[in-house]
Amino acid sequence: MSKVTTPYFSFTPAPAPPSGAARAGGFYTSHGEVLTPAFMPVGTQGTVKGITPVQLREVGPQVILGNTYHLGLRPGDSLVARLGGLHRFMGWDGPILTDSGGFQVFSLASLRKMTEDGVTFQSHVDGSPQFLSPERSLEIQRNLGSDICMALDECPPGRMERAKLEASMARTTRWLARSRAVPLQPHQGLFAINQGGTHLDLRRRHLAEAMDMDAKTPFQGFAVGGLSVGEPKDEMNGVLAEFVKELPADRPRYLMGVGTPEDLLFGIEQGVDLFDCVLPSREARHGRILTSRGKLNLKNARHRETDLPLDPDCGCYTCRTFSRAYLHHLFRCGELLGFTLNTIHNLSYTVGLTRDARQALLENRFPEFAQTARARWQTEEP
Amino acid sequence: MSKVTTPYFSFTPAPAPPSGAARAGGFYTSHGEVLTPAFMPVGTQGTVKGITPVQLREVGPQVILGNTYHLGLRPGDSLVARLGGLHRFMGWDGPILTDSGGFQVFSLASLRKMTEDGVTFQSHVDGSPQFLSPERSLEIQRNLGSDICMALDECPPGRMERAKLEASMARTTRWLARSRAVPLQPHQGLFAINQGGTHLDLRRRHLAEAMDMDAKTPFQGFAVGGLSVGEPKDEMNGVLAEFVKELPADRPRYLMGVGTPEDLLFGIEQGVDLFDCVLPSREARHGRILTSRGKLNLKNARHRETDLPLDPDCGCYTCRTFSRAYLHHLFRCGELLGFTLNTIHNLSYTVGLTRDARQALLENRFPEFAQTARARWQTEEP
Repeated sequence: MSKVTTPYFSFTPAPAPPSGAARAGGFYTSHGEVLTPAFMPVGTQGTVKGITPVQLREVGPQVILGNTYHLGLRPGDSLVARLGGLHRFMGWDGPILTDSGGFQVFSLASLRKMTEDGVTFQSHVDGSPQFLSPERSLEIQRNLGSDICMALDECPPGRMERAKLEASMARTTRWLARSRAVPLQPHQGLFAINQGGTHLDLRRRHLAEAMDMDAKTPFQGFAVGGLSVGEPKDEMNGVLAEFVKELPADRPRYLMGVGTPEDLLFGIEQGVDLFDCVLPSREARHGRILTSRGKLNLKNARHRETDLPLDPDCGCYTCRTFSRAYLHHLFRCGELLGFTLNTIHNLSYTVGLTRDARQALLENRFPEFAQTARARWQTEEP
Repeated sequence: MSKVTTPYFSFTPAPAPPSGAARAGGFYTSHGEVLTPAFMPVGTQGTVKGITPVQLREVGPQVILGNTYHLGLRPGDSLVARLGGLHRFMGWDGPILTDSGGFQVFSLASLRKMTEDGVTFQSHVDGSPQFLSPERSLEIQRNLGSDICMALDECPPGRMERAKLEASMARTTRWLARSRAVPLQPHQGLFAINQGGTHLDLRRRHLAEAMDMDAKTPFQGFAVGGLSVGEPKDEMNGVLAEFVKELPADRPRYLMGVGTPEDLLFGIEQGVDLFDCVLPSREARHGRILTSRGKLNLKNARHRETDLPLDPDCGCYTCRTFSRAYLHHLFRCGELLGFTLNTIHNLSYTVGLTRDARQALLENRFPEFAQTARARWQTEEP
């Protein structure tokens, strides 16, 4: 195994009093420190949809996410490498995490065929035959030059029969061992992904297998995958409440594909450090706005004449500059600027929620912070 | 007549040696000085499509254009007035010129019916019956609170029979007299529009009628309308070469709906001060890029791997930050950010062309400047 632990990735808890399992902390990458808890905006195709890197910098994420599946297909990872890597290509000099591409292969591609070696599938872009394996996934991520790479896992659907799920997890474990053998760039770290659906015993077994490998050469972080994929919310939360605290405390913990403001708060309470989700930016493009007083539908005629910002408690560019009446107008007209301004707000709100949670943890007032946030979502009118 | 001349609008030529009819100058508005020659980006529905006011400020226009027809229909001019006017509504504190709405009524609306009083038409948004008259056009513009208002004119098509055109112009003259009687806000100025197609004698007669009114109370500027509407380019240029210099030298001269970089340069040479056109921003959204070396089609596969900016001689955000390869990728993926970045460049290039022309005029090297620009467009490969 050529992969070595770099000093970059060791998780350092902030000097704050404990608040249950919730924790503030951070780790270094060669593109900067990542202060946690942190929400990662999703930059699927080499862009967080509709906003420039300057605007993204003001939104203030600690790290953003790039998609291995999408970028590998288009423009192609070797082209991105020739052009200096993903950071330079997209003009973002902060930390980047790339996913493994597995989730997209299982949700977007057609004519999938799984073997022990990997997955053959048809590109959703041009129908061309493609192949993804643990080795190919990490080759793409090495070419993209992201700071954090994810090992390829099989992504089972939310409600898979237990025996099938066990077989899928066994394969993911074998793929994890193969992933560790792939040489990365010196600045890159590798995170392992834990599967097991809502079966706590399966998740524990899967983690034990990863920890066996970790004892020889450590992973730089651990992710919880296979949640928020259609299972009931209380089942997901039950797993998180029991399981997150069992992940190694000295490594970043990443809950994949989550989520709503409520989900972020719950995850932080269970000890999660990193989140990603398309929800804030996708909702923004549909005029659904996240605020400290709950959700706001910009399409609603009651905002037509309202000379208030989307969220009077928000300091983002959109809220500093424009009224709901203006944003309602842009949305009704289908103006591109509306997508941009709504995205700036929704991402600012979501990134800000994790930043505020961190500050509350540092100041030993996190339970009150969480209680107040929930009460406002539930009782106030945006 | 309640309209009085404000000191804001008197055109002041810059202290530069003459270069034929071409002139550098400027005039004041209550939202800032307008240094000319100047190209006005078009903000049809209260937004220059796809870019924020911060990005627009960096593009650097002296003045932008808002659409009376569009904003009067949606969100409605009285709503904009209640929200503090168009500047505040759209977050732009620089000068704004509003058109009269006539051009859109004649190009977008259906079921038009013209009378001496005005035009009844069906809204292209919701089919509702609407009415536009000289008085209503200026009421909308007063409510929007733009700095420069345009008098409503009939917009005849490019190739109208002479007798019909004369009748139309006579009506436009009567409408101009009515327009002057409409009270505006104290900071607002009124420009008269000259029609006459490609008939020089008709344009002269029409101007003489306006100058009769001007002798009593001056207009704040004069526009040349009814060109670039389908007539051959050499006919348009012929009219400009003879006619622009006959417009009063002490007032801004505005050539409406023009145009391409070549058209701007020709217009400046004839003594035009202001231009507007959707071309640079519309072309940007179609991946057609204006550069100092001529037009570049971003769709073209030859840009797929090119690690060069759109225009190596351009200092805009897009050119400072991104490669053609990245912009080609965004365009192929249909990513919103591509529209934004291309728009920033095309507008920066066009606004920059008029700014550079002004600088060349101030430095007594305008003929060389124009010659070099044309030679590069024609002979170099972007």
